[in-house]
Amino acid sequence: MQWYFVALLLTFLTSSQGILTTLSQSNGKYLYDYATVPFLAEVFKLVLSGLLVWRECQISPSTRMTTEWKSVRLYVVPSIIYLIHNNVQFATLTYVDASTYQIMGNLKIVTTGILFRLFLRRRLSNLQWMAIILLAVGTTTSQVKGCGEASCDSLFAAPIQGYMLGAVSACLSALAGVYTEFLMKKNNDSLYWQNVQLYTFGSIFNLARLVLDDYRGGYENGSWWQRLFNGYSITTWMVVLNLGSTGLLVSWLMKYADNIVKVYATSMAMLLTMVWSVYLFSFKPTLQLFLGIIICMMSLHMYFAPPNMLLDLPTQVRAASESLKEVTVERRTDS
Amino acid sequence: MQWYFVALLLTFLTSSQGILTTLSQSNGKYLYDYATVPFLAEVFKLVLSGLLVWRECQISPSTRMTTEWKSVRLYVVPSIIYLIHNNVQFATLTYVDASTYQIMGNLKIVTTGILFRLFLRRRLSNLQWMAIILLAVGTTTSQVKGCGEASCDSLFAAPIQGYMLGAVSACLSALAGVYTEFLMKKNNDSLYWQNVQLYTFGSIFNLARLVLDDYRGGYENGSWWQRLFNGYSITTWMVVLNLGSTGLLVSWLMKYADNIVKVYATSMAMLLTMVWSVYLFSFKPTLQLFLGIIICMMSLHMYFAPPNMLLDLPTQVRAASESLKEVTVERRTDS
Repeated sequence: MQWYFVALLLTFLTSSQGILTTLSQSNGKYLYDYATVPFLAEVFKLVLSGLLVWRECQISPSTRMTTEWKSVRLYVVPSIIYLIHNNVQFATLTYVDASTYQIMGNLKIVTTGILFRLFLRRRLSNLQWMAIILLAVGTTTSQVKGCGEASCDSLFAAPIQGYMLGAVSACLSALAGVYTEFLMKKNNDSLYWQNVQLYTFGSIFNLARLVLDDYRGGYENGSWWQRLFNGYSITTWMVVLNLGSTGLLVSWLMKYADNIVKVYATSMAMLLTMVWSVYLFSFKPTLQLFLGIIICMMSLHMYFAPPNMLLDLPTQVRAASESLKEVTVERRTDS
Repeated sequence: MQWYFVALLLTFLTSSQGILTTLSQSNGKYLYDYATVPFLAEVFKLVLSGLLVWRECQISPSTRMTTEWKSVRLYVVPSIIYLIHNNVQFATLTYVDASTYQIMGNLKIVTTGILFRLFLRRRLSNLQWMAIILLAVGTTTSQVKGCGEASCDSLFAAPIQGYMLGAVSACLSALAGVYTEFLMKKNNDSLYWQNVQLYTFGSIFNLARLVLDDYRGGYENGSWWQRLFNGYSITTWMVVLNLGSTGLLVSWLMKYADNIVKVYATSMAMLLTMVWSVYLFSFKPTLQLFLGIIICMMSLHMYFAPPNMLLDLPTQVRAASESLKEVTVERRTDS
C-alpha cells in the first residue's frame, strides 16, 4: 500500500469526523454521553488489531512480536502524554476562548517539525521548513474571523499564561506524535502487535477517565456503563468507527511514513471540513478559507514535489551529468 | 548600484507614500487639489531627467540617444495604457466598493508574472511561479477584513461585470509595466534620455487630464493653473517629491532589473505601510497582517534565494561534480 493512498484516506475520514459529530447531535445537543465515544473507539481499535495479529500469527508463525515488559511498557508513554495534554488543554481554556485555542493549535504543525528534526534526527531542506511554516500559516488564515462574527478582539487580549499554555499544549501534541513514530519504527515488530500494546493502554486510560469523571461528578448521571450505549444512533456508531479507523490509519503512517505526512493529512482534512460545511450546513465561504486552501496547496507541493519539478535544475545537474558521461565515454574509447 | 539596494529604497519610499498623503490632509480633508500632484511629479521627473541627460552629454559626448520619431513614438504607449487603465478603474468602481477593488488589485501580481513570461519570454521555475502566487495571496491575506469592520459581505456580492473589469484592470496594469520594461531594455540608450521621452508624454497626458477635468466641471473651481499650488504645505511637496522619486526608481529597475523585482518592492511597501500605520495612526494590528507578512517573506525567499540554499542539492550536484572531478583526475594520470 502506498503512503499517499493511506494519507488521502486519512484526510477524507478525518474531514468527515466533524461533520458526523455535528450530524449525531439532535437540535444541537448530544443525546448520548460524548466521553464514551473515544473509549469505544479505543476498544474497537484494540479488538480489530487483536484479530489481525491473531490472523497474522496463524498465517506466518514467524510474526515478529517483542513481548518483554521492557519493551511493552514503552507503549504506555503516548497515553500518559495525551493525559497531560488533556489537562493542559483544560487549563489553557480557562485563559483563552475556544477560537483562540483553535488558532493556537496550528502551532503544533511547526512544533512537530521541530521535534521531528530534534528527536528523530530527520533532516529537512530549507524549502521543506518553509513549507511547514506555510502550512501552519495557511490553516491559521482559513480560521481568521470574518467580519460580522462574534467575539472579535480576543485573540491578542488573553493573559500571557494562556499563550504559554497554548505553546506547551502544541509541544505535547507534537511530542506524542514524534514519540509514537519512534515507537513504531524502533523495531520490525508486527504493526498489529504494536497496535495491540498501544490500544491496550489507550483503553485503560480512557476507562480510567470515565471512572474518574463519574467519581468526581458524584455519580449524578449514574455509572459510565449505564450510559455507555444510551442515546446512541447510527450516526453515533459511525463517529466511533470513524475515530477508530483514523487512529488505525495514523498508526500505519507512523510506521511506514512519518509525522509530517500525518500533519499534512489532518491539516488538509480541516480545510476539507470547512469546504463540506459550506455545502452541508450552508456556511458562508470566506475569502480567508479560499486563501488558506491556496497556501496549503502550495505548501504541500513545496514539501513533497521532487526538486527538479520545482526548480529548473536539469540545466545544472544535466550539464554536470552529461559532461560526466562524455568524459566516461572518452575514457572508454581511450582504453 | 545593486538592484536590491534600489528595490529597498523603492520599498521604503513607496511605503511612506500613503503615510505622507494621509499626513498632508487637514482633518481628513485635502486643502489642495490632489489631481495636481501626479502632474507635478511627472514634471519633476522630466526636469530632473533632462538635467541628468544634459550632464551626461557633457561628460561623455558618446552618450547613446536614439532620436528617430520611429523610436520616440513608442514612449507614448505607457501613457496611453495608463489612460485606459484609469478609465477602466473608474468603471470598475461603479460596480464594486473600494476595498473589494483593493483586494482585486493583488491580481496584478499574477498577471505581471504571466505577461512577463509571454511578452518578455522570461522563463520562471515552478517554484518562482508558486512564489508569485503566494505573494498575491499574502498581500490579499493582509487585507482581509477583520471582524467589527464596516461593509462586510460585499466581496462576493458584486455583479460579475465588476470582477471582469477588475481583471481587465489587473491586465492593463501589468501590461504597462511589462511594456515599459521592453522599452527600457530594447536598446542601450541612456536611461535619462529614455526617461525624458517617457515623462514628456507623461506630463502631456497629465496636463490634458487637468484641462479636461476643468472643462467637464464647467470651470467651477477655476482653471487648473489657478489651483496648482493652492493650499500646498511642506507635506504636499514631500508627496510630490516622493511620487517623483519612486517613479525614477521604477524606471531604473525596469532597465537594470525587472518587473518582478518592482512587484516585490511595491507589495512589501504595502505591508510596511500597514505596519507603520499601527504605530503612527494606532491601527489595531490584525492576525491577518501578521500572517500576510510571513507569507510574503516566504515568497520573497522562494523567488530570490539560490536553489542550493533552498534545497539540499549539494548532495546531488556535488556528487555529480565530484565523480566528474575524479574521472578527470584519473584521465590526467592516465595520459
